[in-house]
Amino acid sequence: MLSRLALLGFGNVGRALARLLLRKESELKAKYDLTFRVTGIATGKHGAAIDPDGLDLENALALVEGGGSLSALTRIPVTGPLDFIRLVPADVLFENSPVNVDTGQPAIDHLRAALERGMHAITANKGPVVHAYRELTALAQAKGRKFYFESTVMDGAPIFSLFRSALPAAQLTSFRGILNSTTNLILGRMEAGSTFDDAVHYCQEIGLAETDPSGDVDGWDASIKVAALVTVLMGIPFKPRQVDRTGIRGITAEMVSEAKTQGKRWKLVCSAEKNGNEVKGRVAPELVSPSSTLYSVEGSSSIVEFHTDTLSSLAIVEGNPGPETTAYGLLADFINAVKNR
Amino acid sequence: MLSRLALLGFGNVGRALARLLLRKESELKAKYDLTFRVTGIATGKHGAAIDPDGLDLENALALVEGGGSLSALTRIPVTGPLDFIRLVPADVLFENSPVNVDTGQPAIDHLRAALERGMHAITANKGPVVHAYRELTALAQAKGRKFYFESTVMDGAPIFSLFRSALPAAQLTSFRGILNSTTNLILGRMEAGSTFDDAVHYCQEIGLAETDPSGDVDGWDASIKVAALVTVLMGIPFKPRQVDRTGIRGITAEMVSEAKTQGKRWKLVCSAEKNGNEVKGRVAPELVSPSSTLYSVEGSSSIVEFHTDTLSSLAIVEGNPGPETTAYGLLADFINAVKNR
Repeated sequence: MLSRLALLGFGNVGRALARLLLRKESELKAKYDLTFRVTGIATGKHGAAIDPDGLDLENALALVEGGGSLSALTRIPVTGPLDFIRLVPADVLFENSPVNVDTGQPAIDHLRAALERGMHAITANKGPVVHAYRELTALAQAKGRKFYFESTVMDGAPIFSLFRSALPAAQLTSFRGILNSTTNLILGRMEAGSTFDDAVHYCQEIGLAETDPSGDVDGWDASIKVAALVTVLMGIPFKPRQVDRTGIRGITAEMVSEAKTQGKRWKLVCSAEKNGNEVKGRVAPELVSPSSTLYSVEGSSSIVEFHTDTLSSLAIVEGNPGPETTAYGLLADFINAVKNR
Repeated sequence: MLSRLALLGFGNVGRALARLLLRKESELKAKYDLTFRVTGIATGKHGAAIDPDGLDLENALALVEGGGSLSALTRIPVTGPLDFIRLVPADVLFENSPVNVDTGQPAIDHLRAALERGMHAITANKGPVVHAYRELTALAQAKGRKFYFESTVMDGAPIFSLFRSALPAAQLTSFRGILNSTTNLILGRMEAGSTFDDAVHYCQEIGLAETDPSGDVDGWDASIKVAALVTVLMGIPFKPRQVDRTGIRGITAEMVSEAKTQGKRWKLVCSAEKNGNEVKGRVAPELVSPSSTLYSVEGSSSIVEFHTDTLSSLAIVEGNPGPETTAYGLLADFINAVKNR
């Protein structure tokens, strides 16, 4: 089966996806009889290109990485993202435009437009999950398509697809984990002797933290992930602002070193618990000891421990993620969307 | 859709499955439009019963737990397991007869007979996976049915279904974990001050270890699980005897207490690594420190850490399993078998 793919957003993640598609092309054909053609790529700063016969991905990668514009390759003039979605002949849209977690826009509009046109809508963007999960899922269902977003929490690690396919009839009652890499890395650097400010600066240098680090250090990113997990896996709409949230600004170098003396570690712990239709979500620093599975989760690694009515405890730990890991989540969503039709 | 279920084996696991089916009946109907009827139950010591209109599960449970025989309930005379499979009108066979890990028999014959008759074949029995994975999988495929066995490794935790459905196009290159609960519990008891013999005796008392504990303490059970994971997930037939195997008999109380002083723990570590078409499998005690995800895995909990070509590291940790957990794996296999037709 041939799938025509459209890539909206061609930054680190979009380009990692393009490389992964090239690397997995023959495997997808052999294993799933799945072939693909990339019919469109739209970028923020490097133009957009549509070619119904398929774009040369290697060429597109070289062009954008060399600072050029894709518009030179297009066979159809494109004026913006929504115009791109309206014009591109595609079966799947990968939405990787910049994240706005307060509104989920413009990603929600992009995903809605793609579903309306009968495409599967796949994103690594948390905003639409927190702000429009029910709407987009209902629209996808009405159109016989999928709205998938595996890469929004714990990169490419299978979290949503685990409950969707590998854990049927398991009711999630609570979870607990480390879901924000930046704060986990900051706390690790502080254990190694860094000050808080130096550790933040380091995370900014390696591209993990934003210029304004408050999204991470004040626990907002972690709260968004808690909200996404509650909304999707517990089936109860939940907003980041409903999370009882404490960041890591109150954790001093002294506290970290005192914990170390006791053989413990500070971790920014995300958790939620469901009672009937009520959910309590929480993000707060906690002292953890080596007997906890959270203790060994270092650097940008992450963990979530699920408690369900059927398996008392099941944890997923992801080590050393990167743009390739996020790209793999997008690829997995694509395969699962077209396979399960 | 109505599924007719046959249960071969009605010990702790079979009865836990019966209770779980009763508990999940309305959820399966609501969530998957899946209804079922148990048309047959065959036991080792409590007779067998077939009723095409469906047996009363509560009644069957009470009868067997009260020491009675199911034969009183049957509408068709049954002389043995193969006769049972030949006669029972069913769409799914749950095979939970006693394990023989050297030959996989008689479970292999049971599963083959069920598949030949057009049933899905589901088992918690490791023997058939190690001794007849390819044959039974090919037969299932030829018949348009499924041979599933999620509960054979790490109880009901999703391991096989993870790769089957939640991790498409991920190539497993190596894994490492703690897969035998008895030895993990023995080492934990030794850390708390028990002698090896007392710890073994304790595991026998709580029903975790056999009268002859060598299957666990000499690393055979762990080797069987390594062989099952290699065979299924790496696609290379691998026998328990091919595993480089060292049990825990060489671990003395002194070694355990010395490790404790260093802040470390002895664990019976299972691992395998694939290079091209060659696989090295190993089971051996290793010293692990708190920075390892294996360190916090206590008692009868288990862990496996996968390394793939797409996700550098993904670990699954299962806490506090029991017969209910194994039963959940069987239920999940049933749902996935009939859903994915």
